[in-house]
Amino acid sequence: MKSRTEYLEFNTGKRVDFINITDDVEEAVRKSGVREGFCLVNAMHITASVFINDAEEGLLQDFAKWLEALAPHEPTTRYEHNLTGEVNGDAHIKRTVMGREVVVAITRGELDFGPWEQIYYGEFDGRRPKRVLVKIIGE
Amino acid sequence: MKSRTEYLEFNTGKRVDFINITDDVEEAVRKSGVREGFCLVNAMHITASVFINDAEEGLLQDFAKWLEALAPHEPTTRYEHNLTGEVNGDAHIKRTVMGREVVVAITRGELDFGPWEQIYYGEFDGRRPKRVLVKIIGE
Amino acid sequence: MKSRTEYLEFNTGKRVDFINITDDVEEAVRKSGVREGFCLVNAMHITASVFINDAEEGLLQDFAKWLEALAPHEPTTRYEHNLTGEVNGDAHIKRTVMGREVVVAITRGELDFGPWEQIYYGEFDGRRPKRVLVKIIGE
Repeated sequence: MKSRTEYLEFNTGKRVDFINITDDVEEAVRKSGVREGFCLVNAMHITASVFINDAEEGLLQDFAKWLEALAPHEPTTRYEHNLTGEVNGDAHIKRTVMGREVVVAITRGELDFGPWEQIYYGEFDGRRPKRVLVKIIGE
Repeated sequence: MKSRTEYLEFNTGKRVDFINITDDVEEAVRKSGVREGFCLVNAMHITASVFINDAEEGLLQDFAKWLEALAPHEPTTRYEHNLTGEVNGDAHIKRTVMGREVVVAITRGELDFGPWEQIYYGEFDGRRPKRVLVKIIGE
Repeated sequence: MKSRTEYLEFNTGKRVDFINITDDVEEAVRKSGVREGFCLVNAMHITASVFINDAEEGLLQDFAKWLEALAPHEPTTRYEHNLTGEVNGDAHIKRTVMGREVVVAITRGELDFGPWEQIYYGEFDGRRPKRVLVKIIGE
């Protein structure tokens, strides 16, 4: 069995942001030399997500707007968590809805994707350094 | 390490539908010859889901109704994504809530399931051909 | 390839509860002897979750409150599923939002976690025995 571990770093300028990381993950798969296996991609921070969806700007805006209605950032007093002094209670919930991780099949040395699948990093409490883990196992 | 890759195809008559695919996945596991490993099952399209829940018709209706309230199909002008000419902005969100994929343990040659676990394909923008990937790795 | 399978058991006193199971999973990883691989942790019941988030009591309360607003337990007549005689339609939905499973990378023999990642069991229809599966594969 082969394995490869990589860490991607992000520090977004905005509190909420979406970044297409498909190319980074594809490069990690190439470097791994794995032909048949699994690729795990997960946020290492609990106010950020990794998810798969469409590379379409309007849709990303829809997600941001829909999530804000579902778990509003303000009033920050809405969340018990914010009694800790943080103001990111909403971000913990938004990340949960969007998901921590994706597992993608590797077939014949490539991500085995449908026509529109793209891997996104979703940031809900940005403006600080954060990491994403890419772990590949297989043969 | 052994691996096996299968693609299931669906073309639902309804826009929103749920299909129990447990038997298909079990058959793929048998064919793989894997005794101990992981089975990944994921939608290859970004307006469809794979999830695990109960094979109970009332519950599936509850999911459909609850999702429709959470991310209504209409008015279609509600979603920026629909400015592309598509009218499936809601389906991208519904799929995200229900999940893209499941990873199931294989133990002694079988899906290692609790008493009520069943694997479902969730379609939120049907009436077109779509695929699900089943990828098995292990020994 | 090595593998290890463990089952954790829970029987919560409350209908809705969250239990930090990180230590149990870490112990399973140590016992597995796997240095590089994947660890799957999933609820084996369809009204319970496994998810990763912060070990902070206020946040857990926020999750419980937010989920109750999103899919209220009462009136129980709200859910078609409850026509079966059960009253846990809400729990099936809550578990879906929080997620069935997590897949965690194992690197150099340990869970490859960010600074705040903790694994939680989320119970939404407790006061009965339930199980969580921990499955580890790798080398």
